[in-house]
Amino acid sequence: MTDDQKEHEFEILFEAEGRSVGKMRSEITVTRPGMAVSYEMATDEGEFHGGDDTAPPPLAYFATGFTACLMTQIRAFSKRMNIPVNGCVVKGRYRWTGRQKGREPYVGSPGGFSFDIDLDSDASTEDQFRLIEAARKGCFIDQTLSVANDVGHRLKVGDDWVEV
Amino acid sequence: MTDDQKEHEFEILFEAEGRSVGKMRSEITVTRPGMAVSYEMATDEGEFHGGDDTAPPPLAYFATGFTACLMTQIRAFSKRMNIPVNGCVVKGRYRWTGRQKGREPYVGSPGGFSFDIDLDSDASTEDQFRLIEAARKGCFIDQTLSVANDVGHRLKVGDDWVEV
Repeated sequence: MTDDQKEHEFEILFEAEGRSVGKMRSEITVTRPGMAVSYEMATDEGEFHGGDDTAPPPLAYFATGFTACLMTQIRAFSKRMNIPVNGCVVKGRYRWTGRQKGREPYVGSPGGFSFDIDLDSDASTEDQFRLIEAARKGCFIDQTLSVANDVGHRLKVGDDWVEV
Repeated sequence: MTDDQKEHEFEILFEAEGRSVGKMRSEITVTRPGMAVSYEMATDEGEFHGGDDTAPPPLAYFATGFTACLMTQIRAFSKRMNIPVNGCVVKGRYRWTGRQKGREPYVGSPGGFSFDIDLDSDASTEDQFRLIEAARKGCFIDQTLSVANDVGHRLKVGDDWVEV
């Protein structure tokens, strides 16, 4: 095994601190531990959901992040795999279902996610397929959704953090 | 069963069309089929990943969407469950791992997601727990991550869309 084939692992960390503002607006500061970057973002809900519509809803951010994550990998791996791509248009479809009894809190569930990918490329169809396969395996969000994850929740009680 | 207890289902649909611009920038238009709304968002990558850093990276949008989705449910269900909350601060932690041989395309995998939730509320700890439990069940992203999803990918080949 040459040095070029050595396997290595790397970690990606993001933190997001959200503060409630107004009825449904959330102001979020995203940071990356160990890196000197931060991003300010805001979400809100429409009037139907009790908000003031001052910013896009949370699911619009999710849809943007997921679609763009796949697009990043397509371009990053295009170079590494030597499968030239001049550009791409990706259309993501995101569906969820809510189930509710009367006015009780509803229960959400995923209803399907899919992408239509249009590559501007002279590469063979086979190579384009190989590129998409690699991109979905490299896309952190795609890989996250493809397995069942434990999401942890802790509540602050007095000075302690207690697992919910 | 009174009318108030009738079970019903509703669907939530988002579409995101992303166009590649420059090296790693993606310009995304998010729409909701059947609704007259659209949101323009942009992502980019830092220089390390071959981008120009003109916008936040895709995973920052994912972290914002997920954190804010939970915060929306906390406030929406606070009213329905009669568990008053004056405000909340939610800190989300997002971790992923990449595995790579040499310079080959890496493979991503989820490394853990968790939230620390600080409610400004005079409600009992028990009620606050009940609220968080309901919020995570109502949060579409939380529920999506908790199960394994099939994500579909189609590539445009000539005039046809072919499953990858």
